[in-house]
Amino acid sequence: MSLTSAVEIYRYKGKILKICEDTVVREVPVTLFVNDEELVTMVCTPDSLEELAVGFLCSEGILRHKTDLKDIKININEGLIWVDTASPVPATENFLKRYITTCCGKGRASFYFINDARGMKPLEPGNLNLSIENITALSAMLEERAHLFRKTGGAHGAALCVPEEVLALYEDIGRHNAVDKILGHCFLRGIPLYDKVLVISGRVSSEILIKVARMGVPMIISRAAPTDLALQMAQELGVTVAGFVRGNSLNLYTHPERVYSDK
Amino acid sequence: MSLTSAVEIYRYKGKILKICEDTVVREVPVTLFVNDEELVTMVCTPDSLEELAVGFLCSEGILRHKTDLKDIKININEGLIWVDTASPVPATENFLKRYITTCCGKGRASFYFINDARGMKPLEPGNLNLSIENITALSAMLEERAHLFRKTGGAHGAALCVPEEVLALYEDIGRHNAVDKILGHCFLRGIPLYDKVLVISGRVSSEILIKVARMGVPMIISRAAPTDLALQMAQELGVTVAGFVRGNSLNLYTHPERVYSDK
Repeated sequence: MSLTSAVEIYRYKGKILKICEDTVVREVPVTLFVNDEELVTMVCTPDSLEELAVGFLCSEGILRHKTDLKDIKININEGLIWVDTASPVPATENFLKRYITTCCGKGRASFYFINDARGMKPLEPGNLNLSIENITALSAMLEERAHLFRKTGGAHGAALCVPEEVLALYEDIGRHNAVDKILGHCFLRGIPLYDKVLVISGRVSSEILIKVARMGVPMIISRAAPTDLALQMAQELGVTVAGFVRGNSLNLYTHPERVYSDK
Repeated sequence: MSLTSAVEIYRYKGKILKICEDTVVREVPVTLFVNDEELVTMVCTPDSLEELAVGFLCSEGILRHKTDLKDIKININEGLIWVDTASPVPATENFLKRYITTCCGKGRASFYFINDARGMKPLEPGNLNLSIENITALSAMLEERAHLFRKTGGAHGAALCVPEEVLALYEDIGRHNAVDKILGHCFLRGIPLYDKVLVISGRVSSEILIKVARMGVPMIISRAAPTDLALQMAQELGVTVAGFVRGNSLNLYTHPERVYSDK
């Protein structure tokens, strides 16, 4: 299985637009069964799944010695791994778990939802519109105001924005936490999200995309890369994704109708 | 609570050594109770915990409308959050969970273990020794050979090394997955880890540190930042941490006795 996907994007460098093919990293959900019991679904790069499964089980303390591992089978196309251990493992509630359920009849590689996120509807097109200059300026504002990152190099930032302004900014050691803080900020203050933009310092993975789509944020801007799964979800759920927003250049991956170029 | 910690480090720039104070990002475990039931323990930046808790519960689909939230109480010093919801929440097995248990009698802010990791013993000093030049060269090798990152900008790398050589390299969209692939690689092939070094592209957080300490890797090298909690654990568990290894400079945070400077 290829570790990358080719996608067609709009690439802006200043006001110059180029439609071109880009290479994005592949992200797939993989479900791990131990002794026929479903233990966890991880999203990962579809490579070296035997090492991933075994390493994960070592990290969780389930495998300690070579003899603990009886058998391992992998179906990479279905994203399934079965591990048999020599002895029964302790109750699974004690382990790190990320439950992700597939659904939708579109095949797990192209679409999945976390639990009850399966009820998500695509966003309405709405009235949010940003210029290329808005996008690059917001990304620069996040970078400038991310004080914890500037002090330590060890934090991710997330900013709630309207086209020309940062309304709130949070930082956290966790990419997901920074986004959750924004969502909590809006929930506590009753701030609607259908007309806002989320600007983040970190990568756009499926888990981040699910968070913003679920909360109804129509656009996400990142200084970093997206994954192919996040882009597939963004396409289906009506979310605009801009990535690699640095200096005056950016990639527009999905739903470019919300973005215009100043004359 | 401060969002950073001051630590004393050895800073090398080429062969010039300076002992100085550095600022690292703080990482704390926070346990979230919903209707008096323990739901999850997250590691995070100890800031805006109300927003974090509420945003997390929004992301998980537990809070949907303002009226769903009845009460929220926070004890930031103990790392505890209690949320009461207007209606009972569905069975918690359906939610994202990361179980982290405190123990050890040293106070949760200074030390915690994941589950049965509580049995971890400090590593023996051992015979692993690297020069400053070894460390910067290994970091450059990881950067050079991380092909998926070079193609997509969206992957983390982890390399298993001896002082002068990369033995194996894995990439993944997930920082933890890349490290798990290395651990799985060694488990499957019976490769001992007590005399190896792990070189990673991403940050050194407590979860990464626990993985390497559990598997007996005595040294971790990163191009990025560590957190204060990871450093506290590294200090106690006998792991050498080098961070911000870029070009010919690096920071040495813990157990510098494994590192020497060429004459």
